[in-house]
Amino acid sequence: MYAAPLADIKATLEQMIEAGRLSQTELFADATPETVEAVVAEAAKLAESAMAPINHSGDQEGSRLENGVVRTPTGYKEAYAQIAEGGWVGMAADPEHGGMGLPITVMSAVNEMMASANLSLSLCPLLSQGAIEALEKHGTPEQKALYLPKLISGEWNGAMNLTEPQAGSDVGALRTKAEPVGDGSYRIEGGKIWISWGDNDCASSTVHLVLARLPGAPAGSRGISLFVVPKFLPNADGGLGERNALKVVSLDHKMGLHGSPTCVMAYEGATGWLVGEENKGLACMFTMMNNARLGVGIEGVGIAEMATQKAMAFAMERRQGKTPTQDGQGTIVEFADVRRMLMDMASLTQAARAIAYACAFQLDMARAAPTAEARADAAAMGAFLTPLAKAFGTDVGIEVAQLGVQVHGGMGFIEETGAAQYSRDVRVTAIYEGTNGIQAMDLVGRKLADGGAAAERALGAAAELATAMAAGAAALQGPAMALAEAVGAARETTRWMLEAAPNDRAAGGVDYLRLLSLTFGGMYLLRAAKGGDPRRVALARSFAARRLPEVKALAVRATQGAEDLYALDAQTLSTVS
Amino acid sequence: MYAAPLADIKATLEQMIEAGRLSQTELFADATPETVEAVVAEAAKLAESAMAPINHSGDQEGSRLENGVVRTPTGYKEAYAQIAEGGWVGMAADPEHGGMGLPITVMSAVNEMMASANLSLSLCPLLSQGAIEALEKHGTPEQKALYLPKLISGEWNGAMNLTEPQAGSDVGALRTKAEPVGDGSYRIEGGKIWISWGDNDCASSTVHLVLARLPGAPAGSRGISLFVVPKFLPNADGGLGERNALKVVSLDHKMGLHGSPTCVMAYEGATGWLVGEENKGLACMFTMMNNARLGVGIEGVGIAEMATQKAMAFAMERRQGKTPTQDGQGTIVEFADVRRMLMDMASLTQAARAIAYACAFQLDMARAAPTAEARADAAAMGAFLTPLAKAFGTDVGIEVAQLGVQVHGGMGFIEETGAAQYSRDVRVTAIYEGTNGIQAMDLVGRKLADGGAAAERALGAAAELATAMAAGAAALQGPAMALAEAVGAARETTRWMLEAAPNDRAAGGVDYLRLLSLTFGGMYLLRAAKGGDPRRVALARSFAARRLPEVKALAVRATQGAEDLYALDAQTLSTVS
Repeated sequence: MYAAPLADIKATLEQMIEAGRLSQTELFADATPETVEAVVAEAAKLAESAMAPINHSGDQEGSRLENGVVRTPTGYKEAYAQIAEGGWVGMAADPEHGGMGLPITVMSAVNEMMASANLSLSLCPLLSQGAIEALEKHGTPEQKALYLPKLISGEWNGAMNLTEPQAGSDVGALRTKAEPVGDGSYRIEGGKIWISWGDNDCASSTVHLVLARLPGAPAGSRGISLFVVPKFLPNADGGLGERNALKVVSLDHKMGLHGSPTCVMAYEGATGWLVGEENKGLACMFTMMNNARLGVGIEGVGIAEMATQKAMAFAMERRQGKTPTQDGQGTIVEFADVRRMLMDMASLTQAARAIAYACAFQLDMARAAPTAEARADAAAMGAFLTPLAKAFGTDVGIEVAQLGVQVHGGMGFIEETGAAQYSRDVRVTAIYEGTNGIQAMDLVGRKLADGGAAAERALGAAAELATAMAAGAAALQGPAMALAEAVGAARETTRWMLEAAPNDRAAGGVDYLRLLSLTFGGMYLLRAAKGGDPRRVALARSFAARRLPEVKALAVRATQGAEDLYALDAQTLSTVS
Repeated sequence: MYAAPLADIKATLEQMIEAGRLSQTELFADATPETVEAVVAEAAKLAESAMAPINHSGDQEGSRLENGVVRTPTGYKEAYAQIAEGGWVGMAADPEHGGMGLPITVMSAVNEMMASANLSLSLCPLLSQGAIEALEKHGTPEQKALYLPKLISGEWNGAMNLTEPQAGSDVGALRTKAEPVGDGSYRIEGGKIWISWGDNDCASSTVHLVLARLPGAPAGSRGISLFVVPKFLPNADGGLGERNALKVVSLDHKMGLHGSPTCVMAYEGATGWLVGEENKGLACMFTMMNNARLGVGIEGVGIAEMATQKAMAFAMERRQGKTPTQDGQGTIVEFADVRRMLMDMASLTQAARAIAYACAFQLDMARAAPTAEARADAAAMGAFLTPLAKAFGTDVGIEVAQLGVQVHGGMGFIEETGAAQYSRDVRVTAIYEGTNGIQAMDLVGRKLADGGAAAERALGAAAELATAMAAGAAALQGPAMALAEAVGAARETTRWMLEAAPNDRAAGGVDYLRLLSLTFGGMYLLRAAKGGDPRRVALARSFAARRLPEVKALAVRATQGAEDLYALDAQTLSTVS
């Protein structure tokens, strides 16, 4: 069963990313380390006691569509009510509409614990957070007054309607139509797929944010507008009125996340209202994309943490064969190969967590820092770290969950154990909210468009730490030197990227993203080890010895260019022979 | 849908491992390249037309236990009948009892195609092959006469009963009892778990090979004997007699392989007969362990091939966004990052296939080579390559299936597509028949006990090829140099392993196994590229540029030793903090 890693979260916040700086800003003056610790501890209780106990049963039972209505698994409704009552849906929302106004950094820690405890259920508040943010930034005053209090309180939930069958990663290809009715509302017609929590029996209504095209809108991504389309049309008093003309056609049969209803939606002349400007829908979506991507990265961290805990507990109990220690009588945790896996799991998890929280911190400082320059710097760094937080966080989630299955041996393949569920649930996180390949394209495209300034700022900090610690405590000199080498390879690769043609960058993007992430991960682990805590020293050493060597291999891969990949025409490449 | 990769299989057999040498031996004189090609083509038809069409439906339907009897999914019975009629169950069995007497090399190619087409169903003949081999080697003449013809014809199927809840990887800990009855038979009492195809409605009886302890047998692995325990007691004429006192208690609910019934078995005073000598049961099992492990490695190759085909087909059809080629109008196969994944998938699959087939070839030559010395050399090489074939084959199966999901994007997470099934089905192959960690322990323990002779023989061949080709065709000079570097790192790591303490080797075993496998894979791909075929040249170049660089990183990891892994006591390591 899940136990929130409170000390690790605290160490990440305080030692690795120095989040204490938040409370020195005016905006987050209340977010002192003590308050943050108390908030995190409160959320930990909720995750442990209300969400974790129904994670496995929810997977086995699954959400179902019955007479056009989604029934979530037993216990979801009650657990959701607790999430809502605790104020966790609106924890980062503006206090003006009932939110807690917490920094994204703290929200990320809370979201991580909810993802660890029950990823399927955690998606419901996570998606509401996205809807809240979109309406806060782009809604009219009337829309804000109508929707925000109910979304923030959790009475209603939010759902994002982007994808259509022909328009997955390429959102610009979507076809859903919005016709002005003349009274300020629009008639929405079209179909959407992969709509997580598009309907449910936890909230009393679902507020859909829907991307659609106005008549005569330009083709492609410049002709898309954003609409708010509630399941029930609100009455003048904000209560639930008539049922809107939208419905759930079916639920997808997925590899994992069985508790989370993934809806195929049909809009059949549903009534909606424009959010933001006409044809600026994608821009509206993009303003919250950083947070959403960070949120998904955090999902990966959450599953990595849970899979690690589960594997550790199993390895501590399971007896098989003669161990090299304890007169051969130990449990399998005593085998070197099992320890290798556990150390990899723990250190990768902590590295991914640090990168994700660091990203969150920068997004907070982009709002809260005292000067415009500092805010701009933080925004740039947050934008730079976002694809890393998303792709590395979810890749680590998958990798660690797979290692967790392996530690369990045969029991890992049996569903009763639960280890398999983590590997199934987390799989989609590398795909949705922009595949990890798309994250890499974002990194080597948009995020290097500053001439590598953000990359160099981050790598410079790592180099500085490496230099300082190479002359410090003996146990950390080796890791410091490994970090320095990794920084060297990362800098060289960055230079190569900056000079390379776009498609050559694209060919190496995924590898570049990973090598940067490993390098930064090594930096954060080393920073936390500075205090001399034996566990943190051991993890930093393990990561430096066993994961940082990958950086050089990745640098070779990342800088191969695209030419060879096109040596075969597609037909020859794909023909079975 | 699956299309057997006949040209790739042929190239592997003829160019990579030079299997033509088999027909120069007396034992396999009939296995000429032409005959082998005809046999493979015949099996290909069966896999494509009878097995592949029921792969997805079988996963969705699953095997069920109804009134104590296993019902396999719709169509399994009919497809199994075709496998049996084609003689594929007994394809490598002795012709004396109705087998085809084919080399293991050819059997491996056939098994690969069956695994690609329908892994769940393919396990049934695969396990029968194991039972046949055990009885051929250790059965009495009466046992052979009674069981072999029916197993070889497929009328009955074979099942292996090793695991008990407390005895997974540590088979020596098992507790099932066998009491002599006095008439030459034994009374078997105990429970077994994870018994694949332990009951079914495809064959008319199931022949269980059961490991159990005789009264007063020594503790541990030296007190285990092997018994044959049929579902129905045979009549004097070989027909089915009375039902034996064994039953299926339940079927496991697994992450994948839903079509394959995984039984919890209860032996309640079942009648069995000793196979081989008393207390030599594990040795009997070990004589067929190489083949069984190779068989599982081949399962990984089969799924890798299938996942690659599926991803290629999807990437050729799916349109999303503006491609960097074809005026932006191409399908996603035109994106560099998608090509990177596809090239990795194809080249890894071919590398794993070559290693597995090379292992099979050595196992054949261990029987067929003309001199005792050549047979001993082949046996040693076959034993050395077995853990690589098993662990690398299955790791590649998992890695490639995961890449396949990723290429599919959101469709990869939806079960209807089929890509997810491959990743679920293949997951257990890294676990059963000895986890991949155990394969690595076997490699750095038993398989290096020759002082590294087999390793050096294999690496020497790779070095020779690299030297020859570094001066050959320009397109292959780079890959040849990359191979030479990999060989250098592999040799250094081998030397380190030979000098290291056992637990230090154990700590690096998994990484050492992978670096050897990548090196040999690079060699085989280069050998196939020698002829200048553009597809093979491209794959060899891609593998050398993008996968061989891993070898150096793995060498660093492999040679870290165990000390750091024990820096924390287990309690500190595992405590959530």
